[in-house]
Amino acid sequence: MDSVPGSVGTGASFSLRLGQTVFSSASLLFMSLGVEFYSYTAFCYLVTVMGLVIPWSFTLALVDGYSVLVKCPLRQPGILAIIVVGDWVLSLLTLAAACSTASVVDILLHSDSSYCPSKLCRRYQISAAMAFFSWFLSFASSLFNLWLLPSL
Amino acid sequence: MDSVPGSVGTGASFSLRLGQTVFSSASLLFMSLGVEFYSYTAFCYLVTVMGLVIPWSFTLALVDGYSVLVKCPLRQPGILAIIVVGDWVLSLLTLAAACSTASVVDILLHSDSSYCPSKLCRRYQISAAMAFFSWFLSFASSLFNLWLLPSL
Repeated sequence: MDSVPGSVGTGASFSLRLGQTVFSSASLLFMSLGVEFYSYTAFCYLVTVMGLVIPWSFTLALVDGYSVLVKCPLRQPGILAIIVVGDWVLSLLTLAAACSTASVVDILLHSDSSYCPSKLCRRYQISAAMAFFSWFLSFASSLFNLWLLPSL
Repeated sequence: MDSVPGSVGTGASFSLRLGQTVFSSASLLFMSLGVEFYSYTAFCYLVTVMGLVIPWSFTLALVDGYSVLVKCPLRQPGILAIIVVGDWVLSLLTLAAACSTASVVDILLHSDSSYCPSKLCRRYQISAAMAFFSWFLSFASSLFNLWLLPSL
């Protein structure tokens, strides 16, 4: 059986997972540190989703790192199916959160500036951008794993 | 080769495509008829995406209907790959548009009521809900077709 680059247990997958963890953590920090994010539903949703994505990506990064070290990739179809489904669900949730946040920031930017001081809005924007990066990596991971699934 | 129910050229796929066309048209009509939708970026984005989804779903509905009538399902891997990629891209765009619209409506509902009279906001909400239904059907279509692709 050929190994798909980027699927679970390869070095590329480890990099993808690490990138997801970093970007989601950055998104969460920019959104929640010292900002009253709970005044908008979309921002609360982003924080919730990032709180799910970070442990998921971090755990899978550990699994990938271990697999690379012991040179024994994970090849149980059941576990791979769980990972694929989890990846898909989380990547859709991340996309939804990123889009909601971006559109709310867009509204805030065009409304009265008392709602959104320039410094705060910049942080919201960066948080949305980080969420988009995280979604992109998560989407790539799920595609690679989905590709591997039928060959098991 | 076994035929996956819901993949291109089956009756289930025809129903899915028809549902997508109906829901996206409803979303477009509720958003654009008599409403100043171009004042918000998210609403313009929704209208643009729906303008892409409607012809795509309608064309594929015609293809499916024809395949069912002549009892000769489409089995060219190249064409199927194009359909799968198009479905995925459009389903992601639809999800993004639906989430953006929903979060903008949420903001408008909680802001000053002069921005959003009750009747208008209700229409925006219905439009967002229709976009979500359309996304769900489009996601189902793309999953079924993706499942068929490796067996060709």
